[in-house]
Amino acid sequence: MPDLPHLPHLREAPDASSPAGHAFDAAIALAAADGGGLEGHTSPAYANMVGPYGGITAATLLNAVCIDPARLGDPLALTVNFAGPIADGSFHIDARAVRTNRSTQHWTMSLRQGEQIAATATAVFGLRRETWSSTELGFPLVPPFDALPQRAPRSGPAWLAMYDQRFVHGSFPDLSRPEHENADSTTCLWMRDQPLRPLDFVSLAALCDVFYPRIYRRRPRFTPAGTVSLTVYFHADAPLLAAQGTQAVLGQARAQRFRHGFFDQSAEVWSHDGALLATTHQIVYFKQ
Amino acid sequence: MPDLPHLPHLREAPDASSPAGHAFDAAIALAAADGGGLEGHTSPAYANMVGPYGGITAATLLNAVCIDPARLGDPLALTVNFAGPIADGSFHIDARAVRTNRSTQHWTMSLRQGEQIAATATAVFGLRRETWSSTELGFPLVPPFDALPQRAPRSGPAWLAMYDQRFVHGSFPDLSRPEHENADSTTCLWMRDQPLRPLDFVSLAALCDVFYPRIYRRRPRFTPAGTVSLTVYFHADAPLLAAQGTQAVLGQARAQRFRHGFFDQSAEVWSHDGALLATTHQIVYFKQ
Repeated sequence: MPDLPHLPHLREAPDASSPAGHAFDAAIALAAADGGGLEGHTSPAYANMVGPYGGITAATLLNAVCIDPARLGDPLALTVNFAGPIADGSFHIDARAVRTNRSTQHWTMSLRQGEQIAATATAVFGLRRETWSSTELGFPLVPPFDALPQRAPRSGPAWLAMYDQRFVHGSFPDLSRPEHENADSTTCLWMRDQPLRPLDFVSLAALCDVFYPRIYRRRPRFTPAGTVSLTVYFHADAPLLAAQGTQAVLGQARAQRFRHGFFDQSAEVWSHDGALLATTHQIVYFKQ
Repeated sequence: MPDLPHLPHLREAPDASSPAGHAFDAAIALAAADGGGLEGHTSPAYANMVGPYGGITAATLLNAVCIDPARLGDPLALTVNFAGPIADGSFHIDARAVRTNRSTQHWTMSLRQGEQIAATATAVFGLRRETWSSTELGFPLVPPFDALPQRAPRSGPAWLAMYDQRFVHGSFPDLSRPEHENADSTTCLWMRDQPLRPLDFVSLAALCDVFYPRIYRRRPRFTPAGTVSLTVYFHADAPLLAAQGTQAVLGQARAQRFRHGFFDQSAEVWSHDGALLATTHQIVYFKQ
């Protein structure tokens, strides 16, 4: 989620519940490009300060594999590197299965505009099978989604209107009051697509980037910040996602170290009833 | 660190302190290949059960960028996907700078033998600059390196002899006693190259994979397990690594969720005096 606090006002999201389908599906849609590869188009609904929301770019790159007829199984791991700004307009994605094993498949992807690479990615897909299982992390003790108010920052890019965010703690900082520093960067929130959309692998990938940059939690002041590299590990299989439906997921994020213009943040995304759906990590550029 | 418990005996590591230099440097060495790209060779000193130790493969892929004259700055992020076994012998690495910005540079790498891709990777390099800094994680309260005995498993692949591992808790499991299950997968240990070698980015990348698979900590029994994808975020710059010299680093690792044949583990690597050098994450295949 790069560059949150720069736009003066939250832009109006287009009508995403129109008969044409959810704006999320339009934003990640890809068509066969002349000469090979896939072509997509940035969506005003998911516009960020500069170019698209990082989560929608991650979901679009993952979608390039999901819709490929050569795909084996479901996503296990995704890494997206945000190499440069994506201009409003069309973009080209190449997705290539570089190795297919009996139960796993390795993909490399790139997103370019003209000859300029704007993002690179890798993904591992695979077949899941029953094994011993255990969740070592504990589901946080939190009030239910309905008991919390929806929050939005005073100003921010369009994509924020596409998520209903309800904070247990660590809500949007008031960036006009930089004297309020926090010792801890943790945020815990319920979140879901707005308008509602049933959870699937691509929307889960996008949700992994909803957490605003942890630097704003520690030091609430205007500063450029943007994700450099994002990794998602998928613990959920398709039936577990289907059982979640349109219910909110619980996210919890925290930073580990801020230094020399970069910090890392790690997060978990849980189902409404306490199943760990994904763990996610990113390294973020910041300037202050 | 795939496939720990399969070899009957720890193989003897070759003399790594020979005048020819450290075995680590020989293992990650790359030369220009005929027709472009780089050629390397697996090292018996870092042999794993099947092919090389994952950490040495990660270090070798990172080295391909480090030695490239087009490189900008130092490593910020590295992701390596282990796509298939690497046979003993030579391999080919292609490393390509796909985007160079003012202060960051994005690389894609691949490792192949013949026409078969065995690993893919991406890296972000960049220039660091002074900013506000903070380490949010606490350095664990641990006894000093010298106060702890060196440990090695009863049996294991050659590469284990290349690291001096001293466990604070969560030492090598006795895989012949599967009745001893643990509720917690955490391991904390001091570790360093053996023979000694001053820490740098490539050896730090390799150290990030030293932690044995967390499934053996929870369920100490013979089972195949292997890293599928590994990510390292580098918090250290070159002067901080140089100040570390040959002193041991402290590592702490734990799993988050085991399910359907895969689990994720996250770890931190700290300097001898409590500076967070790297955070690292991986998703691991297991069978039981």
